[in-house]
Amino acid sequence: MGNCIVPYCDGPKSTNVRWTLPAVCFVWQCAMVILFGCFVRYNDEVDAHWPEFKIEKNITSDAENDFYFRYPSFQDVHVMIFVGFGFLMTFMKRYSFGAVGFNFLVAAFGIQWALLMQGWFHHIDSEDGMIKIGVENIINADFCVASCLIAYGALLGKVSPVQLMVMTLFGVTLFAVEEYIILNLIHAKDAGGSMVIHTFGAYFGLSISWVLYRPNLKDSSKLNGSVYHSDVFAMIGTLFLWMFWPSFNSAICQHGDGQHRAAINTYLSLAATVLTTFAISSLLEKNGKLDMVHIQNSTLAGGVAVGTAAEFMLSPYGALIVGFFCGVISTLGYIYLSPFLERKLKIQDSCGVHNLHAMPGVIGGIVGAISAAGATESVYGLQGLKDTFDFTGDFKNRTPAAQGGFQAAAMCVSICFGIGGGIFVGLILRMPLWGDPTDDKCFDDVIYWEVPDEEEPVEADLHYNNHTVANNHVEVTETRFTVGQQ
Amino acid sequence: MGNCIVPYCDGPKSTNVRWTLPAVCFVWQCAMVILFGCFVRYNDEVDAHWPEFKIEKNITSDAENDFYFRYPSFQDVHVMIFVGFGFLMTFMKRYSFGAVGFNFLVAAFGIQWALLMQGWFHHIDSEDGMIKIGVENIINADFCVASCLIAYGALLGKVSPVQLMVMTLFGVTLFAVEEYIILNLIHAKDAGGSMVIHTFGAYFGLSISWVLYRPNLKDSSKLNGSVYHSDVFAMIGTLFLWMFWPSFNSAICQHGDGQHRAAINTYLSLAATVLTTFAISSLLEKNGKLDMVHIQNSTLAGGVAVGTAAEFMLSPYGALIVGFFCGVISTLGYIYLSPFLERKLKIQDSCGVHNLHAMPGVIGGIVGAISAAGATESVYGLQGLKDTFDFTGDFKNRTPAAQGGFQAAAMCVSICFGIGGGIFVGLILRMPLWGDPTDDKCFDDVIYWEVPDEEEPVEADLHYNNHTVANNHVEVTETRFTVGQQ
Amino acid sequence: MGNCIVPYCDGPKSTNVRWTLPAVCFVWQCAMVILFGCFVRYNDEVDAHWPEFKIEKNITSDAENDFYFRYPSFQDVHVMIFVGFGFLMTFMKRYSFGAVGFNFLVAAFGIQWALLMQGWFHHIDSEDGMIKIGVENIINADFCVASCLIAYGALLGKVSPVQLMVMTLFGVTLFAVEEYIILNLIHAKDAGGSMVIHTFGAYFGLSISWVLYRPNLKDSSKLNGSVYHSDVFAMIGTLFLWMFWPSFNSAICQHGDGQHRAAINTYLSLAATVLTTFAISSLLEKNGKLDMVHIQNSTLAGGVAVGTAAEFMLSPYGALIVGFFCGVISTLGYIYLSPFLERKLKIQDSCGVHNLHAMPGVIGGIVGAISAAGATESVYGLQGLKDTFDFTGDFKNRTPAAQGGFQAAAMCVSICFGIGGGIFVGLILRMPLWGDPTDDKCFDDVIYWEVPDEEEPVEADLHYNNHTVANNHVEVTETRFTVGQQ
Repeated sequence: MGNCIVPYCDGPKSTNVRWTLPAVCFVWQCAMVILFGCFVRYNDEVDAHWPEFKIEKNITSDAENDFYFRYPSFQDVHVMIFVGFGFLMTFMKRYSFGAVGFNFLVAAFGIQWALLMQGWFHHIDSEDGMIKIGVENIINADFCVASCLIAYGALLGKVSPVQLMVMTLFGVTLFAVEEYIILNLIHAKDAGGSMVIHTFGAYFGLSISWVLYRPNLKDSSKLNGSVYHSDVFAMIGTLFLWMFWPSFNSAICQHGDGQHRAAINTYLSLAATVLTTFAISSLLEKNGKLDMVHIQNSTLAGGVAVGTAAEFMLSPYGALIVGFFCGVISTLGYIYLSPFLERKLKIQDSCGVHNLHAMPGVIGGIVGAISAAGATESVYGLQGLKDTFDFTGDFKNRTPAAQGGFQAAAMCVSICFGIGGGIFVGLILRMPLWGDPTDDKCFDDVIYWEVPDEEEPVEADLHYNNHTVANNHVEVTETRFTVGQQ
Repeated sequence: MGNCIVPYCDGPKSTNVRWTLPAVCFVWQCAMVILFGCFVRYNDEVDAHWPEFKIEKNITSDAENDFYFRYPSFQDVHVMIFVGFGFLMTFMKRYSFGAVGFNFLVAAFGIQWALLMQGWFHHIDSEDGMIKIGVENIINADFCVASCLIAYGALLGKVSPVQLMVMTLFGVTLFAVEEYIILNLIHAKDAGGSMVIHTFGAYFGLSISWVLYRPNLKDSSKLNGSVYHSDVFAMIGTLFLWMFWPSFNSAICQHGDGQHRAAINTYLSLAATVLTTFAISSLLEKNGKLDMVHIQNSTLAGGVAVGTAAEFMLSPYGALIVGFFCGVISTLGYIYLSPFLERKLKIQDSCGVHNLHAMPGVIGGIVGAISAAGATESVYGLQGLKDTFDFTGDFKNRTPAAQGGFQAAAMCVSICFGIGGGIFVGLILRMPLWGDPTDDKCFDDVIYWEVPDEEEPVEADLHYNNHTVANNHVEVTETRFTVGQQ
Repeated sequence: MGNCIVPYCDGPKSTNVRWTLPAVCFVWQCAMVILFGCFVRYNDEVDAHWPEFKIEKNITSDAENDFYFRYPSFQDVHVMIFVGFGFLMTFMKRYSFGAVGFNFLVAAFGIQWALLMQGWFHHIDSEDGMIKIGVENIINADFCVASCLIAYGALLGKVSPVQLMVMTLFGVTLFAVEEYIILNLIHAKDAGGSMVIHTFGAYFGLSISWVLYRPNLKDSSKLNGSVYHSDVFAMIGTLFLWMFWPSFNSAICQHGDGQHRAAINTYLSLAATVLTTFAISSLLEKNGKLDMVHIQNSTLAGGVAVGTAAEFMLSPYGALIVGFFCGVISTLGYIYLSPFLERKLKIQDSCGVHNLHAMPGVIGGIVGAISAAGATESVYGLQGLKDTFDFTGDFKNRTPAAQGGFQAAAMCVSICFGIGGGIFVGLILRMPLWGDPTDDKCFDDVIYWEVPDEEEPVEADLHYNNHTVANNHVEVTETRFTVGQQ
């Protein structure tokens, strides 16, 4: 492993996380309680003083509470994070518990830490120094966690839950800084997070995977693949991600036309991606047969790529074009690029996040930059241009052309944070104390989970009694009980 | 095959879709991009000029944007189309990839084509000749696609993806014309699409199935059935359809009481259907055991049948009565009518769409006609009557009695379009160039999909080493690997 | 069985429900139609007279219709009831049909009966004596049914569908009375139903299970457990419950800040629960391996426990603390308390509802009492205090301290109703006419369902032909077909 920096521990490793996992979970959850106690309060629309606030702000209807503008989208995003990402990764034959379970753990920790980190950067109340949270914050926390779950996709089956918790701790922190630089300092727009979430998350995970390169991973190759029903489980994840992506990209857009436009653009882009994914998959696989890996993943690329520009006046055919090319590029990536990355660059990408998040994310950033640079008052209207790009305050004199440049700069920031942060966190995760599996024990739930005994031979007793089976046969039968089960 | 019109090609058929499927996907997606570029734009509530539009129309709150009235329902409908229909069809032991995958492909194409076709008929802007789209259009596109997915239910496992794409191209076109005649010319009401969607879609699919009759389908009978876990997967589809049906029937109703009433009526009707389905299934199956086919399908019949009248003042007990009878009729259909249709009428209906969509759809049309004819001003109020039946413009003098007659006429139109269109499309699909499977290869994913190798015998090596197994035994064991897996 | 009161029928029992199940379903559904016809009508926001009502009440926007405040939450609750509860119980290797199917049946009946029972107690129109229903009623009906589904969790696999219907009939009735006493007479607050739904439902089910104690249940122990994929199915239930719990607890809160606050509190509490559940599970299971039973169930305890206080100014860290302890207590319950309850108290709790609903429910009641007693005007504001605790009408002079006492009293009422009602219903269910399985036939779908034949040996013919297998081997192979399948 040429890229090794800290010395690698070659001794027999323990995968027992009996002390480390409970310790991490308990200590960090206690820290969350204390930090929330010191820093987090409800915002004005959540607080019981809302009736007074309404009078003060001259709000006539409860329907104006931000809850009603954002909560349905929030719930869709929430489903994407927990069921979407969780089940998408259940495709492996013996890593479904780890996929959906560790996804659950990591996300539940990440959303709390994200509320704090994003709060410190974005939502400090100037009066009392407290973080004031409401529905928009919990959407943003889910978004932040998405980047860590994308990174998990690159590492699936090769890391311990403790490593995932450590990765999430740093990942959320890096995300909050990167987001602050991109959205507040550079003042780029990124409604669906093509750059902030997907590009960052994917390069973060890929860099970690590069540092944690496992030269003998082929020893686990028997478990590194799907069985029939695990592919069907994964489609649950795919479809919930695909269906709710319009909510993801529109969830924190401005009220009214902004949310409306982001949802429509995403709907169209995703539809186009499906067709081109099927086309490439059938064209390039042997005998024209479709590959479930492509259908499960590449069909989502259009949602990633339209993220930054979702709120812009991309126009319906613009959204279709973005989706069209992303389906092609993402599927080609699975066929040609992933094997190349593993062989030449030593990047082992379990779920192919480079094809699903990194490339489409970069495309999304570029589409965002171009469409921002090309924005005109005739297309947006005077007020619409201001609202869409938030040309107010310090940025009131920024032109669309300048905005395009800043969007491109933001793209670079997200890549740098992803790669740099990933290498840093990867080195931490290489320390031989996190309980990760050896190369021949990857992709196996049995390391970290009580896996149920295989199905009891329900009517076997009967059969044993019916036939006087010879000793040899019993042996064969026993082999079957161990083996011939899903 | 007595009903054969064009000569049937008896030569060895190829099921390789390596060229046809990519060609169809690419060319049609390119056509979508071009047509959207020429014809489709955002409507006023999606466009960035919304702030100016608000001032012009004296709209005070962003909450009045149609997005907030319809988007939550849209997402529910979206789940029904992709997860509901997709997973409902996964019940077959070896056609889950095809069920959920081709459903995905067909729907993603169909929604784009539907936006165009429905746009040309309903949403042309008189000023610039463009189709203006918003959230209501994407709901309608999902509705339109539903009719093609219902048709797919009759054909499941017997057609190639290329045939499905061709069927969808024509199906959406026919739907748009039929919908225009029923909703605009006849001015019938059909909020939940009992007639427009379900009756049309079911007869469309059944007619295609009739034309494509496979006399030797019994050669595939080994795969034409469920296994334990595939029935559980199918319940995911059933439940998401069942739960979100109130959103389906209310999604495009008028704001306020219309949407509210449609949701309540559908909720009640579906609840009643469940009880009568369980009753009939237990009563007529041997030993009083329940049949999963009925529970998966007939429980949904009440949602279909209450579609047309969902927005009407059906009253809560009226909704229950509709659901009551539909559960009975649909379950009886599965037990007695489906075998009859296959044996006598040569209609092979893979999912039983005649019982789930055709009969309940017709019942729904009749219920709609009767309840429209019986509408009175005392029940609806003067304004309510006008709003509910849209007695404005050219139709301002229509009476409820006349409306009842027109509703019945609409019913006939949908049946005629379904049967006529189905025969026409069926004849096209019989051309021997679409790559459909032979009679003995139906219901098998292996034709169009890379099906994963069965689970590797994980611990088998160990056992091979432990026992010195005789040659014969190895053969037996090998047999098992091929066979004894799900 | 020492606690036996009515004589137990020891003769051979029939599990054939061919007459009883259809009879119960038909007769009760007919009764529902008649009772709805006599008593149930639309309320003002559902009725077609809404345009006149709007003018009368000076409502300017359709967005003020309660439908738009509550419908998205309703759909989330609906998913929890049918997919959440249904799939959570699919964890058993051979009881998935019964889990998801009987859950479906019971809930579909229960919501109708609940609309009537809750209507008679809460929603009688004083003018015409009719029950007037709208979206809030169908949410409440779903809530009511939840308590019966919780009770089903204690009985899973050990009762017949007829017994479940009888249990639901009485359970809903008891619920409506208990709810009336707690919410109307005692005037306690219980937004998420920690007391009214969870505590009542859990003790109701546990008491029934106690009365129906099966001394020889170990005869069914082969089927009382999970297999790999059934645990993955159960995670679908877990995650949809977990994700949508914020909607459950906020669905019927007051518009505006009330709903907003309940959602945020629940979101936070649930996140904390996940971490402590993982911690305890890993700490106390052998070798630090995680147990799926805990992850599937205990992660939800925080949602139960924050139910009563969800609408209160619990503050974000308060919600985290509640979730923290519930994860710990619930997981400890699974490890230590459940075996004790079965061994010493003769309570067989199939799904561990004591750990998931009873204990967290009681904690929720206590948290509610304490946080109500500690409420101050400075924290809530004058109007906020009135709105949150509904200190109006007869209760306008109640103090927060008094409210705390009444909350505690409500807690006791729910426990008493649960235990007392459960014993009563349990005795009814012991009558030997309901078709329940014998002790050695529990947890098996084959009793009440047509279970599909195991997968056909697709390519077996081929192999039989290839090898001239000796007679003995064929026997072994046959054994496999019966046995070695999931």
